[in-house]
Amino acid sequence: MADVMSPTRPFAITPIDGGITAPTGFRSAAVHCGIKAKPGALDLAVLAVDTFASMAALFTTNLAQAAPVLVSKRHLEITHGVGCAIVVNSGCANACTGAGGLANATAMAAETAVDLGCEPEQVLVASTGVIGVGLNMDRVVPGIHEACSSLAHSNASETAGAIMTTDPFPKEYAVRVDTSHGSFAIGGMAKGSGMIEPNMATMLGFLTTDAQVTPGMLQRALSDSARDTFNAITVDGECSTNDSLFAMATGTSGVVITGHLYPALLEGLLAVSRHLALGIVRGGEGATKLIAVTVLNARTSDDARQVARTIANSPLVKTAVHGADPNWGRIVAAAGRAGVVFDVDRATVRIGGILLFENGLPHDEAAPKAAEILQRDTVDIEVSLGAGDAAATIWGCDLSAEYVRINGEYRT
Amino acid sequence: MADVMSPTRPFAITPIDGGITAPTGFRSAAVHCGIKAKPGALDLAVLAVDTFASMAALFTTNLAQAAPVLVSKRHLEITHGVGCAIVVNSGCANACTGAGGLANATAMAAETAVDLGCEPEQVLVASTGVIGVGLNMDRVVPGIHEACSSLAHSNASETAGAIMTTDPFPKEYAVRVDTSHGSFAIGGMAKGSGMIEPNMATMLGFLTTDAQVTPGMLQRALSDSARDTFNAITVDGECSTNDSLFAMATGTSGVVITGHLYPALLEGLLAVSRHLALGIVRGGEGATKLIAVTVLNARTSDDARQVARTIANSPLVKTAVHGADPNWGRIVAAAGRAGVVFDVDRATVRIGGILLFENGLPHDEAAPKAAEILQRDTVDIEVSLGAGDAAATIWGCDLSAEYVRINGEYRT
Repeated sequence: MADVMSPTRPFAITPIDGGITAPTGFRSAAVHCGIKAKPGALDLAVLAVDTFASMAALFTTNLAQAAPVLVSKRHLEITHGVGCAIVVNSGCANACTGAGGLANATAMAAETAVDLGCEPEQVLVASTGVIGVGLNMDRVVPGIHEACSSLAHSNASETAGAIMTTDPFPKEYAVRVDTSHGSFAIGGMAKGSGMIEPNMATMLGFLTTDAQVTPGMLQRALSDSARDTFNAITVDGECSTNDSLFAMATGTSGVVITGHLYPALLEGLLAVSRHLALGIVRGGEGATKLIAVTVLNARTSDDARQVARTIANSPLVKTAVHGADPNWGRIVAAAGRAGVVFDVDRATVRIGGILLFENGLPHDEAAPKAAEILQRDTVDIEVSLGAGDAAATIWGCDLSAEYVRINGEYRT
Repeated sequence: MADVMSPTRPFAITPIDGGITAPTGFRSAAVHCGIKAKPGALDLAVLAVDTFASMAALFTTNLAQAAPVLVSKRHLEITHGVGCAIVVNSGCANACTGAGGLANATAMAAETAVDLGCEPEQVLVASTGVIGVGLNMDRVVPGIHEACSSLAHSNASETAGAIMTTDPFPKEYAVRVDTSHGSFAIGGMAKGSGMIEPNMATMLGFLTTDAQVTPGMLQRALSDSARDTFNAITVDGECSTNDSLFAMATGTSGVVITGHLYPALLEGLLAVSRHLALGIVRGGEGATKLIAVTVLNARTSDDARQVARTIANSPLVKTAVHGADPNWGRIVAAAGRAGVVFDVDRATVRIGGILLFENGLPHDEAAPKAAEILQRDTVDIEVSLGAGDAAATIWGCDLSAEYVRINGEYRT
């Protein structure tokens, strides 16, 4: 994927190796401390910076917010977005755990801070796993100390593995952004497989950069990049108690992001976030196909997003795609119940570019060709509403018997 | 189920045999005309009255409305709710079929009217089945004539069978309502299995009575009874293009429904509708358990309904119930994302009456008992929001691998 600068786009973005520690100034470590029962399964990680970093975050919109979410929010407020590390565990969400859970999340930050020589409030906390079960701190605390003593630039892949729950594969990515004012890197890792829905999910995302950015600008760039990436995916329409997306910027590249370079930072964040978000959907629980639902010619982009989301979350559309059935009727029915006004007779439906519905009538002669395209592992659904010129894309996945198996047996 | 009159409830409701033709003045017939490929599979039915009936109906709120829905709406408008029959087919939804589909639905009414000696507009039309496929009128027209020539009081069960698609069993019911002004009967049949969601679904419902009711009062009673029955069920959160609920009243019992007797009519309709609606959920595609989600102590009944619906539609709650996992955490997470404001720390969650979450904390000691109750084929989930005194119940079902199989292979 070669990329070049041009007068209208004075920067270039190139994929590189290294994940979250591809940018300079970051170290990480992952350990097995026993939160997960499986021997040797990595379940705790620390991501730290050599000195200090600008920090930003987005959190779940669920009313039921897990202890690590509440603690991280408070720490960001106290420090005004300047910190030194994030400590994260998998296997236990530390959600619906009351005052004891809050104390445990606070202790996770404090133990990490002791080892790193910073203030407890300069450490953020994330957890993912089963809701309503308390953390066993007799395991977590030694795990934190072990992780902090083995921080290195070379542990990115293990760290991406340690945040997984039902994920079938780890998700990490990094890019180099070249600008006329110098180069910086952006890295990232994410986890999430079920309970995935726009506006965050049982999703944890971590973005790192060595660009020099103020916490305020980093927060703005994070929000702007999440809208069309992490907040435009859905696996099952669920939204979790723990969803968190973090960004950290060390500034060690020496490239200062001002308004002039903001587009370069944003495009870099978008490239990394898009890669990670699509990885989450592709690794969705039981998913065998990635579905990109694009709604065109909507009155507003909110309308487009709502129709696309309703289609991407429709169990009947998801099962039809799973069965490679070009059932455009279910797509029309899902669009029609999305709560957005449009004229069905002016709408069109395409699967894999094949026109299947137009002027209120099917193009059944095209169905066999569409059925063929539905065998692929990426399926494009395109619906034009004929109501305006706004558009949006939501990424989802198919619904398989495997999803039922995973979620019927998760705890038992 | 014995029932008695009392000063505050001056009527009694008793289940009786006979389905849609239990009330006097109705005849029906069901035939195989070849819409369904399977030899002998009943796929067309006519429900007719001896003279004239008051008629009322509720239709899908989907923007994409099938031809039979559009035709029935127009016929009700023209006749001001006085008619003589409903003709219905299964195996083909006649939806997204353009001007040709409208002509076919209109022709179905006209052909029926010829045989019955009434006006075409006095016949309503319903269809259920695959979207986007046209009706083969060379089969439908002879089918209508065959059905009209074999109308009888004794065909109710066959008629309830002829409207099925993926339904695992037919749904019919009837009650006798005894009042101090005499007795009348209410019968009914329904179909629906997938694409089921509050505000109607791929659901067809037919209610009959020999009470004497004006079309306006019948419409009001139908709306009032549907709110907590047909509109309080969900299988998969989908809403179809064809959903229709019809009511017909012949008046042949001689019991005139005035304001005084309205509660007796309403309670009778509720009894029949509740039985049929729960049958739809219990026969939901792939369903093995009926889930009754009751939300208590909400600020408003709309709030209660919205939270209950979000829980009942949550894939993670549905799969947990399927796996008999007392995963109250998923119930809290679903309630928390329902868009209704409440304080999670004041909420409680019960499964089968067993308290599992209170004061922000789990009651894990009760989980084994709840897991036992989850083995039953009916599961009660109760969530108290601690925000007011409104309540609502939504009925749903579990999500099984069988749902995926049915909907991944429906057309292919």
